[in-house]
This record gives sequence, C-alpha cells and structure tokens, in this order.
Amino acid sequence: MEGAQAVREAQRHGRVRELFVTDAAAARHPELLGAGSSRPSWITERAAASLSDTVTPQGIFAVCDLVDVPLERSLAGAPRLVAVCVAVGDPGNVGTIIRVADAAGADAVVLAGDAVDPHNGKAVRASTGSLFHLPVTRERDTAAALAACRAAGLTTLVADARGELDLHDPAVAPVLAGPVAWIFGGEAHGVPATVAEAAEHRVRVPIHGRAESLNLATAAAVCLYASVGARRLRSRPDE
Amino acid sequence: MEGAQAVREAQRHGRVRELFVTDAAAARHPELLGAGSSRPSWITERAAASLSDTVTPQGIFAVCDLVDVPLERSLAGAPRLVAVCVAVGDPGNVGTIIRVADAAGADAVVLAGDAVDPHNGKAVRASTGSLFHLPVTRERDTAAALAACRAAGLTTLVADARGELDLHDPAVAPVLAGPVAWIFGGEAHGVPATVAEAAEHRVRVPIHGRAESLNLATAAAVCLYASVGARRLRSRPDE
Repeated sequence: MEGAQAVREAQRHGRVRELFVTDAAAARHPELLGAGSSRPSWITERAAASLSDTVTPQGIFAVCDLVDVPLERSLAGAPRLVAVCVAVGDPGNVGTIIRVADAAGADAVVLAGDAVDPHNGKAVRASTGSLFHLPVTRERDTAAALAACRAAGLTTLVADARGELDLHDPAVAPVLAGPVAWIFGGEAHGVPATVAEAAEHRVRVPIHGRAESLNLATAAAVCLYASVGARRLRSRPDE
Repeated sequence: MEGAQAVREAQRHGRVRELFVTDAAAARHPELLGAGSSRPSWITERAAASLSDTVTPQGIFAVCDLVDVPLERSLAGAPRLVAVCVAVGDPGNVGTIIRVADAAGADAVVLAGDAVDPHNGKAVRASTGSLFHLPVTRERDTAAALAACRAAGLTTLVADARGELDLHDPAVAPVLAGPVAWIFGGEAHGVPATVAEAAEHRVRVPIHGRAESLNLATAAAVCLYASVGARRLRSRPDE
C-alpha cells in the first residue's frame, strides 16, 4: 500500500503488517504512526522514491495482508448488487470501479477471467480505501463466476453498447431494480461474446451525442447508479 | 495531438495542420496518411519517443488548430445540458468529462476558473475525439460563466456531496430534466463555496456504501446521465 489514504484504510481494517515512513510523511500524518500494532520503520526520501510507483511519492507505505476473498463468500447472504469485471486489465479502471461499487452500495466486486490484480498499487490508490469496504474476489473461470451469480439469485446484465435493452427505457427499470450482477468488459473489446450471450440481458447506455462510447469506469458508474435509482423509484410508487 | 484516434478525429473535423508519422505507425494506419490536405512528415521512432508524453508512443502526431470557442458561442441556441468544470486541474478528468458530456448529448463543456488546458495531450487522449464533437470553452471568470449559463436559461446545479437535493429523490427529477448546467469541482476540494452558494441548487449523489466520495469523472457521468434519464421519464408520463 502506498499513500496516507490507503494506509489509513488498511489500518482501520487491521490489515497492516509493516509500516514504512519518511520523516516528512511522519510529520504530515502523525495519526498514522501509532495506529497499528507494529512500530513504523523509518526510511529516507531516496528509499521512498525507490519503493514508490508514483512520480511524487507521499513517503508512507505499508505491507498488508491480501484482501480478496473466495467467490462463495462474496456472494453469501442474498446479494442485491454485484459488479463483475471480465478480463479488465487496467488497474486504474478496476480501482475506480471498486470505489464506485462501494459508493453505490454494492455487495461485492468480482474480477473474472484474466483480470488485473486488485492489489496492484494503481488499483489500490484508485479505490481510495474501498478495496477494504466490500468483498473483492478474483475468479479466473468467468463462466463459473456468472453461474455463481445466478445461483445467488442475481439477474446477469451485461453492459454492452449494442445491447437489446436501453438503460433509460422505463420498461427496463424493474429489471435494474431487482437483484442484479452488472458485468463489465475491458475498454478495448468489451465483454467477450460468449459471456454476453450467456447473460440474461445485454443493456446499452444510450449515446446521445457523437462519442463512440463511454470509458469503462464511467459506464460502470452510470449502470450501477441506474440500479440504485431504479430501486428508489420502485420503493416510492406514489411518486 | 497524439495517437491514431485523436488524429483521425482532428482530420475528420479539418483541424490538422501538420502530420508526423513513423514507418510503423504509417503501416498500421495507412488510412490516416491521405486524409489531410498536407503530406505527412516522416519521423524516426526516436523522434516519436521524444515528441510523445506516453510511455509507449503510437508514432503518429498532428499539429492542430485550437478548438475552444467563446462562451457566447458555446451557449448559443437554447442549450439544454451543459457541463461546467470549475478549477479542475487533472487533464484525464477533463478529457473524460468532455467524453461523457458528448455521450450524454450535452450542448457544451465550459472549463471555468484556473482549469487545465483542454488541448493538453492527456486531456485530448482521454476525450477520445469528443473534444471535436461539442463546443468547449475556457472562461477564467467563474462567476461570469455561471451568469452566462443562467442568462441562457439553464438552471445551475452544483454536484456537491453535502447538497440539499438528493439526485435520486423522485421530487428532484423535474429539476434534472429541465435545461441545466451541471457544475463540477476539482476532486480534492470540490466546487468553491462561493460558487456553490451562488448556484440555484446543490445536488448530492447518494453514497450507499462506505466510500467517502466518487471520483470526479464518475460523479459527472452519474449526474449528466441522471438528467438524460429524467428527461426520458418525463417524455413518457404514462410509464
């Protein structure tokens, strides 16, 4: 883990094994030094630069336990909203989707297929702590991940620019409002055709201008929040 | 401009003055070589690496006309949806917001205050061509930008985590569905308090999990698409 926000979240969730900090970072974040069970190890700015994979290192690092959990634990307890990323390789996108899923109140994030490691430094930073807030699972077998979602009572919805359902069609709102697993693919190729065909519905985010598409994290945000909004409408049928 | 997609869009909109290309890029993108009025200049891989601000340069570059337009032109003709970024410094966020605004069918994007230059290479790449699809304006005077939005008949809505309106409150939908200017602030500090107070409404994206916030581009996507969805619902009152 790198950076004060990520380290703070890791401490809050009891995940820190070792803490490394520069003098300057210690002065900026004294609250982080006494929080863990272990004493910090002091490092130089030069060591911080070599540990860091950012251009301007914050000077605070932690070695943490891995956070991912098995699929059956992610999907336990009647989930209502799950985000599934299929073969998403960009760590920034994965971290941002974990953050958005957390904000939308999702029960879990599943990284299926040949996906980026959620412990990747860039993914951790982009998640801004959300990696610790909800269960995150890696499952190489995409078909198994989708079968598990269906077995958990989730309707499988693929976000697909050529989908047969329009996200904003009022007739689609009851589908969005139910227990759903939203399935997102990599930005270059989308969800693999076999996966898209195996899902119950393919849903398109309507494009009204001349953009060819949305980027992955913004599309995921629009889809996950569409489910949140649709539930809200259905819970107040008088409105 | 850097990269095949950005150059293609610039050519399509007649914005390219000069084109620079490596042998390898020319072989990959022959369709880009004859499209402009000017002949390409051939460059070495080494020259491409020095022109590029990416780690793995695509080997194709163009010198283009600036695209930004004056505020009065951006807001001409009864706009219905405008995205205003106030003092947003991250070029990736600005480019992604331009792309999302385009996809949502927005009439314009206004970069107000001390904002990043939309011609910044990273902003151009993140916009994936959308920079050419809708008017983009730079206006250093934020108050003037908001006054111009109101004069154009737009309701000013600030995306604000502590806003008094809830994006998903059905009672808010008529506001979202009208002609609106959505105002977004930088990720670290949000919209300046004076700007937020001067706007007609402050709207919060509800956070259902334990995330502290959404990132800027995903929040903008959720807000802009909430307006698109609210219009769709109002246009079909029987649903």
